Amino acid sequence: MTVNLLALSPLTDADIETLNAYDVVVIRPENLTIKNYGDIDISYGWDGDIINHILATPNHQLKWIQAYSAGVDYMPLNTLAEQKIILTNASGQRSKPIAQSVISYIFYFARGLNVYQNQKSWQPFTNQFILQALPVIIFGTGQIGQQIAKYLQSFDTPVYGVNTSGHPVDNFDKVFAINNLNNLPDNIAIVINSLPSTAQTNHFFDKHSLNLFNDLFLFINIGRGATVNETDLLTKLNDGTIKYAALDVTATEPISDDSKLWQQDNLLLTQHTTWAGNSEKLFTIFMKNLPDFIDHKPLSVNVVNYDTGY
Amino acid sequence: MTVNLLALSPLTDADIETLNAYDVVVIRPENLTIKNYGDIDISYGWDGDIINHILATPNHQLKWIQAYSAGVDYMPLNTLAEQKIILTNASGQRSKPIAQSVISYIFYFARGLNVYQNQKSWQPFTNQFILQALPVIIFGTGQIGQQIAKYLQSFDTPVYGVNTSGHPVDNFDKVFAINNLNNLPDNIAIVINSLPSTAQTNHFFDKHSLNLFNDLFLFINIGRGATVNETDLLTKLNDGTIKYAALDVTATEPISDDSKLWQQDNLLLTQHTTWAGNSEKLFTIFMKNLPDFIDHKPLSVNVVNYDTGY
Repeated sequence: MTVNLLALSPLTDADIETLNAYDVVVIRPENLTIKNYGDIDISYGWDGDIINHILATPNHQLKWIQAYSAGVDYMPLNTLAEQKIILTNASGQRSKPIAQSVISYIFYFARGLNVYQNQKSWQPFTNQFILQALPVIIFGTGQIGQQIAKYLQSFDTPVYGVNTSGHPVDNFDKVFAINNLNNLPDNIAIVINSLPSTAQTNHFFDKHSLNLFNDLFLFINIGRGATVNETDLLTKLNDGTIKYAALDVTATEPISDDSKLWQQDNLLLTQHTTWAGNSEKLFTIFMKNLPDFIDHKPLSVNVVNYDTGY
Repeated sequence: MTVNLLALSPLTDADIETLNAYDVVVIRPENLTIKNYGDIDISYGWDGDIINHILATPNHQLKWIQAYSAGVDYMPLNTLAEQKIILTNASGQRSKPIAQSVISYIFYFARGLNVYQNQKSWQPFTNQFILQALPVIIFGTGQIGQQIAKYLQSFDTPVYGVNTSGHPVDNFDKVFAINNLNNLPDNIAIVINSLPSTAQTNHFFDKHSLNLFNDLFLFINIGRGATVNETDLLTKLNDGTIKYAALDVTATEPISDDSKLWQQDNLLLTQHTTWAGNSEKLFTIFMKNLPDFIDHKPLSVNVVNYDTGY
C-alpha cells in the first residue's frame, strides 16, 4: 500500500529516491488540489493554511506530521491531539548551531568583544573573564541544554541544570527541580533559558524568578520569547542587577522598529537565527521513524507529548 | 646562604612567606639603591631601566630573571646570553585566557555577532557556520597553540598545526613544518598566528605566505605584531581574499588614532589584552624552578633558549 507524503519542507532527489524505495509517494504543495487534500498520510514540514485545510477535510487520512522545528507551540496542538495525529519535532537537529551561538554570546561578553567592537582609539579593557569563573545554570535539560552543557564542560565551567523533576542529566554538575529553586548555588553568573513555550512556562522569567540571582553577568534566551517578561528583564538590565542579556527569541517577532529592545546597549539580539548553520538534516531525523510508520508500529523518535506540549 | 630576590612583579604576603622559608629575601624596587644593585640574585619580573643598571654593575650577581610574559622579545637577549643569565618565561600562564579570546573571535564571526551587534531593525542573517565547517591552522604549537587546539577539538573542528620541524603535537590532526607549506589542505578557513617574534618570523605573514590560503574566512594574530606585514593584510582584507581579521597584537602599540586599522570594518582589534582574566599565577610558575635554583641544579621549567629567542 502506498503512502502519500506532502513535501512542505525541502527534499533532495536522493531523499525522494529513498522514500520511493519505501513505496512513499512525494506530493509537492503546488500539486495539491481540493481533490487530494484527503489523501495525504504524512506531512513533512508545516504550512498552517494547508494543514488546517486538511484537518477540516472529512475523512482525511493525515496520520503523521514531521515538524521542521524543535518547538511546536505555533501549531493547533489541541486539534492535532483530538484527531490523534502523531507529531514529531526536529529536536536535536538544531542543537549544535544553537549551542554554539550560546557559546558565542558567553565569550562575546566574557572576553570583552562587546567593549572592543566599536572602539576607534586605544583604550585597553582588562576586566575580562575566563569561563571557569562564570558558573552557569541552564533551564531545560533537553537536547539543546545538554549540548550547551557539554561544550561548557570543555572550559571547566561549573554547569547546573533545571528540569521538571530535578533528575540528573549527563554533563550537568547538578540538576534542580523547577518548582524547588530556593537552594541554588549563590555564585551563578549566567542564566541560559532553553525552556519550551507551554502554559506553565509563560512569563516564567519575571522579576520574581530573576530575583533568585542577585548579581547576574548574563541572561540568555534561546528557548521561546513567551517565557520571559521583557518589561521585567529591561528593568533589571537598566538597574544593573543583570549586566548583559542576549536574546535570540523575543515576545514579538519580528521586533518592531520602535521597540525599546533595539535601544538597550547591554542587550544583544540575534533575531531568531541561532538555528542557522550546517546541522543534522531534517530528513535524517524523519527517516529514524519512517520504517516503524510503514510497519504500523508506534513511532519512537522525537514524538511530541500533547500533555506537555513538547 | 641567603638569596636576594628583586620583586618587580607583585607578590602576596603568602608568596613572601613561602620565599622566606627558602631563605629568599624579598627586595622591593623602591628599596633598591646604587649600593645593592650588585646584590640581586633573582629578578622576579622585568623593568628595563633597573635591569640594565644591574647588568652594567661590575661584579653583579644576577643569575636568573623570571619574565612576567610568554614572549621575551622586548629584552636584550644577546646581553643576557653573554652574561649567562638564566631567563624563564611565563609561557602557559596566559594560555587559557588567550585561547579563550581566540575562541571568542571565531564564534563572533562564525555565528554572525559582528553582523548583529549594531543592528537596530529586524534583518535576519542566516549565513552562519558551525565550527566543524571551518578547518583551522595554528602557526605555533607551543602551550598557547595547544590550548587553542584542545578547545577547538570540542567543537569537532579540523585542527592543523605548523611548527619548526613538523613534529606531531597532541590535539592537532596534522602538523606541518614551517619551511614546507606547499601541501597544506586546501579547505583551511581560519589561520591563527601564535608565532613568537624572532628574526625568522619577522613579517612572516606577508602577501606571499597569505597567498597559501585562497579564500580565508578569518585571520587571527595573538602572537606578536612584528610577524605580520599589516599593509599586505589590509590589502587582502580589502580585496576580499580574507573576509575577516582579529588582531590582539599589532606592529605598533598603542595604535595611533589616525591608523587605518581603526577604520577597517572587517577587522576586530583587542589591544593586546587577551592575556587578561583569571589565570595561573606567575608565582606558581616561578616556584616550579626555585628549589632547583637553591640547590644549584639546572632549571627545567620555561627556560628560554637564547638561540631561538623563546
